[in-house]
Amino acid sequence: MTEQEIRTALAKAIDAAREKNPLAPSITNTVTQDFVANAQLAVGGAATMIYLPDECETMAKLAPAFYINIGTAFPFYAETVPAAARALHENQTPWVLDPVGVGFGGLRTKILSELKNFKPTIIRGNASEIIALAKLWQLVDENYSGTVRGVETTEKVSAAKAAAIALAKFTGGAVAVSGESDLITDGAKMIVCTGGSSLFTKITGSGCALGGVMAVYAAVADPFIAALAATTIFNVAGVKAAAQVDAPASFKIKFLDTLFTLSAQDVAENFHTPGILDSLLTYTFGMEMSAT
Amino acid sequence: MTEQEIRTALAKAIDAAREKNPLAPSITNTVTQDFVANAQLAVGGAATMIYLPDECETMAKLAPAFYINIGTAFPFYAETVPAAARALHENQTPWVLDPVGVGFGGLRTKILSELKNFKPTIIRGNASEIIALAKLWQLVDENYSGTVRGVETTEKVSAAKAAAIALAKFTGGAVAVSGESDLITDGAKMIVCTGGSSLFTKITGSGCALGGVMAVYAAVADPFIAALAATTIFNVAGVKAAAQVDAPASFKIKFLDTLFTLSAQDVAENFHTPGILDSLLTYTFGMEMSAT
Amino acid sequence: MTEQEIRTALAKAIDAAREKNPLAPSITNTVTQDFVANAQLAVGGAATMIYLPDECETMAKLAPAFYINIGTAFPFYAETVPAAARALHENQTPWVLDPVGVGFGGLRTKILSELKNFKPTIIRGNASEIIALAKLWQLVDENYSGTVRGVETTEKVSAAKAAAIALAKFTGGAVAVSGESDLITDGAKMIVCTGGSSLFTKITGSGCALGGVMAVYAAVADPFIAALAATTIFNVAGVKAAAQVDAPASFKIKFLDTLFTLSAQDVAENFHTPGILDSLLTYTFGMEMSAT
Repeated sequence: MTEQEIRTALAKAIDAAREKNPLAPSITNTVTQDFVANAQLAVGGAATMIYLPDECETMAKLAPAFYINIGTAFPFYAETVPAAARALHENQTPWVLDPVGVGFGGLRTKILSELKNFKPTIIRGNASEIIALAKLWQLVDENYSGTVRGVETTEKVSAAKAAAIALAKFTGGAVAVSGESDLITDGAKMIVCTGGSSLFTKITGSGCALGGVMAVYAAVADPFIAALAATTIFNVAGVKAAAQVDAPASFKIKFLDTLFTLSAQDVAENFHTPGILDSLLTYTFGMEMSAT
Repeated sequence: MTEQEIRTALAKAIDAAREKNPLAPSITNTVTQDFVANAQLAVGGAATMIYLPDECETMAKLAPAFYINIGTAFPFYAETVPAAARALHENQTPWVLDPVGVGFGGLRTKILSELKNFKPTIIRGNASEIIALAKLWQLVDENYSGTVRGVETTEKVSAAKAAAIALAKFTGGAVAVSGESDLITDGAKMIVCTGGSSLFTKITGSGCALGGVMAVYAAVADPFIAALAATTIFNVAGVKAAAQVDAPASFKIKFLDTLFTLSAQDVAENFHTPGILDSLLTYTFGMEMSAT
Repeated sequence: MTEQEIRTALAKAIDAAREKNPLAPSITNTVTQDFVANAQLAVGGAATMIYLPDECETMAKLAPAFYINIGTAFPFYAETVPAAARALHENQTPWVLDPVGVGFGGLRTKILSELKNFKPTIIRGNASEIIALAKLWQLVDENYSGTVRGVETTEKVSAAKAAAIALAKFTGGAVAVSGESDLITDGAKMIVCTGGSSLFTKITGSGCALGGVMAVYAAVADPFIAALAATTIFNVAGVKAAAQVDAPASFKIKFLDTLFTLSAQDVAENFHTPGILDSLLTYTFGMEMSAT
């Protein structure tokens, strides 16, 4: 894809979400549900959070996309999460997996292992989580470096490059590694984006909200563009919000407001800024690339 | 009731909540608990959220009102929700039912069917939900039009008129249908209110917060006035907030602030505005009416 | 401790949290998780919320501090909460107990009774809760006055003085009684602080957020200083926020922003204000005192 093709695709996805108002139900952690839902609404989507297996199965058929965030695992997730993922896979409904805290806890590990069978359309996480998931699914070597500390980023995005590519090749979908810069790949092509604000790390749930918004875009665009559209609107809105306020709680308000007010054109135009490319990743913008 | 009687009753309910600080405990969805609690506090009430059956039963005796929102149903709701509703009914404690997502899911349907026995004092929902509940309880014909899509409004409030009346006649309480305009009936009289802002649809939980605030007013007023007081303070605060900000996250903050700062007189005076009546509903303000 | 020693210790704790970014995981109520996590982040800590026993046991070993708030008790808390507390006790990991709604409900009472065995490092509650917990643990006489109404303060802080001292002597840690003024004791010394704003009572979760922040400071300071640092930064930020806004939702935003922007020096300097002492408690500031 050329830079212009990407801009066009981004603008199209952002407008489509506002026009179609896609419902992207979630199984997601209790801490950040309000933020996830409000971010989904702000970009034009609709939100509903679910805990029961049969309700997930029904929604897997009815809804155009789904978001699964394993954050605050409940005991009943043992049944709910695999049931949802199986139904999503069987119905070919696009879904986003946020493997929060992968590698931590017995049930979480068991569930995330099972999810390998149901190939998430988009996987979104920080570098530690992407690496840990690729290891859990035995897609990279056990000695691939990486540690998980709670739900936080402890590694640079670039460290997860090979893990992200391996996951994307396995699922046939896209992988987004979020961090100070963001890496998005579908296993064949890769983009690194920058933008956002360090204030995102001072509010809880910006990663979850990003995952939820990816699900909204996954209802109206292909996985790679959906992951990129969500990442870019977050980066652009983050920059704009941080230019106006300098503390976390007002940043969150300003950020959500900006998600709502940004036009598709605003987002597409602000996608290409100096520093958006990361030469470490041997990607030169505007050129097709092979991710391997 | 005349218009003046309504204004007086509204002002009285709004002041009484501020004076008596009534505790209105909730079984409510995890997404919007923070918004529900903060709205209850802003109008002078007190909030506590509960999941365990025995705690609900105790609160059904101790608290002056209760709110049940079936939103994010948990597996254990099978026991908790009917236990709470039974205790509320037996103790004649006013309670508000928000049948979020009625018609969706096996457990939700089972629980909402059982709740018919415990006659909620106020039922609050969007048009789709009110129609679906009236069908579930076999109070209107199966062919009565109406569909439920997630938790969103897919029908005009006026479409739910007969369903709302049927529910109110059955329970002996009040029914509030929320939407662009709002319809409130106790089966004998009916009012349509307008106001608010389309920004309410861009934040998650405004319906839940409205239901929670109805429970606060149900502790100090009759069901019809309680439903009307909550609806009116939301409409007035929504108009005032939307006059100051134009994006959803700051709207929510401004709205909650305005709930807190509005005087009873502000609310009562702003209750009657042009457009507050809906002639489609054959109601002329200031006249007694029969809802049938 | 002299006043100057306290100021120095406060500043040191506040800076240490910002430097070390300690993770303080929580088992906490679903209503206020967002507020707890954002307050923990604002003071420099890191947050994660957990429901599963084995995950709590692992975190009890890995994390430098932990927060347990029994607020919205789930059925599975019967297993999760004692498992967490036992592991915290065995690993000598500092932990904060917020006995929300103690005395209410069978499971809550059973769990809180068991927690006596695992001696929380800091106990934080309003006067009613501190009194009820001291009674439940049979550390004060059954006739000691005090009632619990939901989760709200129904008693003056000073009424809980003897209960707080008894709890602190039993655990060997600190106890913080929150209210219009705040009382902190480690069983040997006692401080009463004032500050804050009545707007704290108009937003849900300020007590929970305070408990969560105490856990962050408990990772970097002794229990008494940790309880005092959290209380003081809340009091100072509350005063500053209330000087700028006068309604609850904007107060919450401004308060969180101020938690983030306050320097250690700001907090330490603002610790000593007229009215910070309560002569009812026979404490004269700047003097060593015996709490008995």
